[in-house]
Amino acid sequence: MSLFDSLFQPLFEPRRIALIGASSDEKRTTSRPQRFLQKHGFAGEILPVNPGRAEIFGVKAWKSIDDIPGEIDHAYILLNGKDAVSALAACGARGIKVASILAGGFADAGAAGASMQDDLVRIVKETGIRLVGPNSIGTVSTDPPMALTANAAFAVEKLRTGSWGLVSQSGSLIGALLSRADARGIGFSRLISVGNEVDLAVGEIADLMVDDPKTKAILLFMETLRDGDRLARAARRAHAAGKPVIAYKLGRSDIGQELAKSHTGAIAGSDATFDAFCRRHGISRVSMFESLIDVPSLLVDRPPPTGKRVAVATTTGGGAAMVVDSMAMAGLDIADPPQALVDWLKPLGIAAGEGKLVDLTLAGAKPEIVAGTIERLLADPGNDAAIFVVGSSAQFNPELAVEPLLRFAKSGKPFAVSLTPSAEKSLALLTAAGVPAFRHPESCAEAMALCLLRPTPQPVPEMGASAKAAVEALEAGRAKGFDERRASALFEALGVPMARSLTVPDARRVAAAVGEVGAPVALKILSADIAHKTEAGGVVLGLRDGQSAAVAAREIETRVKAHSPNAKLDGFLVQKMERGLAEVILGFRRDPLVGPTVTVGLGGVLAEIYKDAATRIAPVSEAEAREMVAEVKGLATIRGYRNLPKGDVAALAKTIAVFSRLAHADFAAVSEAEINPLLIKREGEGVVAVDGLVIAKG
Amino acid sequence: MSLFDSLFQPLFEPRRIALIGASSDEKRTTSRPQRFLQKHGFAGEILPVNPGRAEIFGVKAWKSIDDIPGEIDHAYILLNGKDAVSALAACGARGIKVASILAGGFADAGAAGASMQDDLVRIVKETGIRLVGPNSIGTVSTDPPMALTANAAFAVEKLRTGSWGLVSQSGSLIGALLSRADARGIGFSRLISVGNEVDLAVGEIADLMVDDPKTKAILLFMETLRDGDRLARAARRAHAAGKPVIAYKLGRSDIGQELAKSHTGAIAGSDATFDAFCRRHGISRVSMFESLIDVPSLLVDRPPPTGKRVAVATTTGGGAAMVVDSMAMAGLDIADPPQALVDWLKPLGIAAGEGKLVDLTLAGAKPEIVAGTIERLLADPGNDAAIFVVGSSAQFNPELAVEPLLRFAKSGKPFAVSLTPSAEKSLALLTAAGVPAFRHPESCAEAMALCLLRPTPQPVPEMGASAKAAVEALEAGRAKGFDERRASALFEALGVPMARSLTVPDARRVAAAVGEVGAPVALKILSADIAHKTEAGGVVLGLRDGQSAAVAAREIETRVKAHSPNAKLDGFLVQKMERGLAEVILGFRRDPLVGPTVTVGLGGVLAEIYKDAATRIAPVSEAEAREMVAEVKGLATIRGYRNLPKGDVAALAKTIAVFSRLAHADFAAVSEAEINPLLIKREGEGVVAVDGLVIAKG
Repeated sequence: MSLFDSLFQPLFEPRRIALIGASSDEKRTTSRPQRFLQKHGFAGEILPVNPGRAEIFGVKAWKSIDDIPGEIDHAYILLNGKDAVSALAACGARGIKVASILAGGFADAGAAGASMQDDLVRIVKETGIRLVGPNSIGTVSTDPPMALTANAAFAVEKLRTGSWGLVSQSGSLIGALLSRADARGIGFSRLISVGNEVDLAVGEIADLMVDDPKTKAILLFMETLRDGDRLARAARRAHAAGKPVIAYKLGRSDIGQELAKSHTGAIAGSDATFDAFCRRHGISRVSMFESLIDVPSLLVDRPPPTGKRVAVATTTGGGAAMVVDSMAMAGLDIADPPQALVDWLKPLGIAAGEGKLVDLTLAGAKPEIVAGTIERLLADPGNDAAIFVVGSSAQFNPELAVEPLLRFAKSGKPFAVSLTPSAEKSLALLTAAGVPAFRHPESCAEAMALCLLRPTPQPVPEMGASAKAAVEALEAGRAKGFDERRASALFEALGVPMARSLTVPDARRVAAAVGEVGAPVALKILSADIAHKTEAGGVVLGLRDGQSAAVAAREIETRVKAHSPNAKLDGFLVQKMERGLAEVILGFRRDPLVGPTVTVGLGGVLAEIYKDAATRIAPVSEAEAREMVAEVKGLATIRGYRNLPKGDVAALAKTIAVFSRLAHADFAAVSEAEINPLLIKREGEGVVAVDGLVIAKG
Repeated sequence: MSLFDSLFQPLFEPRRIALIGASSDEKRTTSRPQRFLQKHGFAGEILPVNPGRAEIFGVKAWKSIDDIPGEIDHAYILLNGKDAVSALAACGARGIKVASILAGGFADAGAAGASMQDDLVRIVKETGIRLVGPNSIGTVSTDPPMALTANAAFAVEKLRTGSWGLVSQSGSLIGALLSRADARGIGFSRLISVGNEVDLAVGEIADLMVDDPKTKAILLFMETLRDGDRLARAARRAHAAGKPVIAYKLGRSDIGQELAKSHTGAIAGSDATFDAFCRRHGISRVSMFESLIDVPSLLVDRPPPTGKRVAVATTTGGGAAMVVDSMAMAGLDIADPPQALVDWLKPLGIAAGEGKLVDLTLAGAKPEIVAGTIERLLADPGNDAAIFVVGSSAQFNPELAVEPLLRFAKSGKPFAVSLTPSAEKSLALLTAAGVPAFRHPESCAEAMALCLLRPTPQPVPEMGASAKAAVEALEAGRAKGFDERRASALFEALGVPMARSLTVPDARRVAAAVGEVGAPVALKILSADIAHKTEAGGVVLGLRDGQSAAVAAREIETRVKAHSPNAKLDGFLVQKMERGLAEVILGFRRDPLVGPTVTVGLGGVLAEIYKDAATRIAPVSEAEAREMVAEVKGLATIRGYRNLPKGDVAALAKTIAVFSRLAHADFAAVSEAEINPLLIKREGEGVVAVDGLVIAKG
């Protein structure tokens, strides 16, 4: 059976739908699915199940699901708690392909609910039924109409059709987005509330929509991420199919729930990892709720952007200045007016060559001038997109104001219209014609930024087999504890250049080691029991000869024993002191949502304060690592800022890439790792790691 | 004659208005003022002036302004260029109190226009007439109606009255704001386009509105700032009168037009100085255009905020989560539900004690539960404001949904409603009842942040007389050039602790000076001709004794002569090397818009990259300086971050305050000054400046 037959069709285009626990009481939420199916013209068969009724809203009701003859595509279970669990079991036993459960009170409501949710998981596994929810407010298709939902928003008179698919982890926000889109004259192809995602989750449903000919853009409202791998796959396939995936995700202000042991954990935060996920897989993330409605029109059917230069023309200087200001804040460039346009406008008495803005002024608001201007802007290779900012005419003469704009609906380059006054009629005319149009200068700028700066999916680097030495180093560390020496061995085996060093079992051997490593040296206590050696008094830097190193070693012992009397001490690390132009921290961790991530940040307390770091999904290629380096603001110091000497960015990128291979399955036992500091030397002189930390499952 | 009689009344409530250059051709812009005055029921007398017509739109027309008998309050000049200038002269000669000029083409249009604008200035000065514009699209009052404007937006059927006054430097955006407010059911008291501000500018008009009983909030749309002192005065008086001043200003992305000679100039940027101006004088600055309409309702008639803790209740968890997320991003805290509310909801079956959000869920959407919840939130001393987030009921049952909210319109604490679906009817009902209500979770959060975090005007520190030594140091520097020694003398006289140092005329005296100052020392070339001594090879640090310093001095001479052969060398500065926990830069400059400013930023190249600095209008008090220190993120290192030793913040604040006294009139010749670095020692040990720079008019 094809995926279409087994899942897509019963989910979005079912012919026979059972409503288990349907109600004939209009006041009850459980009456809504049947009423909304009927109201919006569902052409298939509705099968209400309610042992107490013979008929509901004019349709024969059944005592039990087992009484219904023939195949059922989709069952919407409107019962609560254990009754819902039993109903799902019955659906599964009967061979129904897809069921949805309305009720909450499962994993979203404490231990008792979680145990019932486990029952649902078991039934799904045993029977092969696919489940939406629990806590799903429903699934809707608009063409052909199929409003299988209890969301009050579907009491609307008319269900508008459209080509955007919406997948939401919040049920109530389906309604909010429906109403907001409807007010803009925009409809959806599918809307689905995924609830607790026991089985079907955002990623798998988005993946179905990639193959849905009725869906051209996939919108996600997310509170968490439960099937990252599936969503990654969906986003990549959507990109290949030319369908934008646009996500709003809650939790931007969440500065991280876990107390991370290493600094990079604290720097990266949990929201940065979702950003990294979106970037890696080519998902456009919006920051404003309304942008979920505003942005798609500018992204649908668009080839990848050619650059970030936007040309702006207007009849209202002030209104356009707001758009320009917001775009510049969002990282876009403003393109100069093309000479051909300046020359064309001059005999018309319009001086357009001086500023970046083509201000036609009120005098130039004639339709043929507006259209001629936009035509010349869009033809100019000096920009990558164009915006026209309309003034008061949009309010009083909507037809006249938008008429010269409509012909650019299918422009090759992105073209958008920003409306300065409140002009709902103009907005509706533009939207109906397929011209992306915006109410606010800020949302126009955000949409254009998302359009021109949108990520393309990055190739996932091939990792091949791991070096045998690295796997052995991991095993050694797991067996005996990851002190600094064993961490270094692992990093070195991965390909990270480590500072020259020797380990010695006690203070008496320190002086000789200094002779071998070469002064000056750093001396560090070795102990898997001490996470922060400096705070324990276990580190002395800049020792200039063997004798002073030997003295320092005995002092370290005294201090560390006082600080951590129960720590097992394994001797000393004698390490050549290295110097660099800059210090960075490399961090590796496994994010509970997006999986392995790698972070590079500037070293030192200041970088920690500024949270100046770049995070990506691991592993990264050297090319992606180079992008990360470019993103860390403070690394401007090694990129040629103010004629400072340049650092070895190539070696840094290479080291980030090899370090990120901790994401390989062979290293699944590594839950966190950090190199701090990694010193960046001059261009051509490489990088060298001085200290590191590995946290692994024993 | 009172200000009311001489300015306010003829500007906003004129009885007899002359329209010089009125047109009877409806298609012409110059016909609009008369049409709009008539359309909106102006009760006074309209006096069209047009030598070619006997009558315009049913009103007798006059050949010239001089033919009109009796007093004229306000003349709107609708002529262009030189004709407008002549008309203004005629109005001035005739003793008309206020004139407005519609036409642009003055200083906004090159040299020829600028010269005509000079003529306007002269006429204003000679005749005492007050002028709005040129380039003013008009002045409007709504009650009694007086639509003296050529802005097409006033073609609206009905001019809504209201209590907000709008002053705009953009004429077209008056129309945009009128239409946007109207769509929200909001009206204005006055609207005025100030154009090129040859005479009357934003500040003076805002000041008039402070005394206007019909105006409760003053909204400003700004492109620049021409009368900062007047606006400062207006904002302070408005604050005292309980009227919020709310400004949108273009130019946030402008990273500064001038090439500043010193680093702080580059760090501060021109937009940060406008922020500093707003903060000093108590102006709320909004970042979104629509916020000019959205925000005032939450600020009008509100005493200063008591804190920044917001309680949030809702019937839609997802919708409320977006508001909470946005508020946390904006720097607000979310308050826990009060116990009294938790106890009250419990028997109703609503569990509200677990999260920060009071989620009544759909089950709790009953009016009495909603009202009881909000009542208990507003009564709780544990928060400073409350928000209710409404779900789908706002869309389908507006009356029912908003009914329990309306009674909180006059709540003592700020109370706002955020609408999750598109629900224009609910929005209108709430607005009409005076309940601040919002379309977007983000705008609700921005408004609440502006309400609870709004600045109160800071007292301007008394400076008294300047120290005689400081004035003498300035004179010496102006006479002979501000080399480092003379700059130090000025800073020292102001009260800035400077590092111990001696100047010597040549290299032979260096060794002896080291003996007096105490090693280690820094050795620096003295020359008023060299701005960047380090780059010229003129600085050597860390010299440990007199002999090595003498050698270094000769090497410096050789390098500097090679680097700057024409520079006059004045000897050497031998300075005790100082160490601190952190280094800051203090900067002083005169901003062309807001006047003297003081900036404190972290020293070093990283701080420059991060633009981590705080800017204020100078002078600042020690209390304000302490706020500045708290604002510099990187100074966390001396505020006790991660148990690092604390720095002497009190001494730093004191030094910023004395440095900022360069704003005193006695130092008007100082155009820019910088101390770099100022070293911060441990708590109680003070600060010490190592190097400084003064740029003064000779």
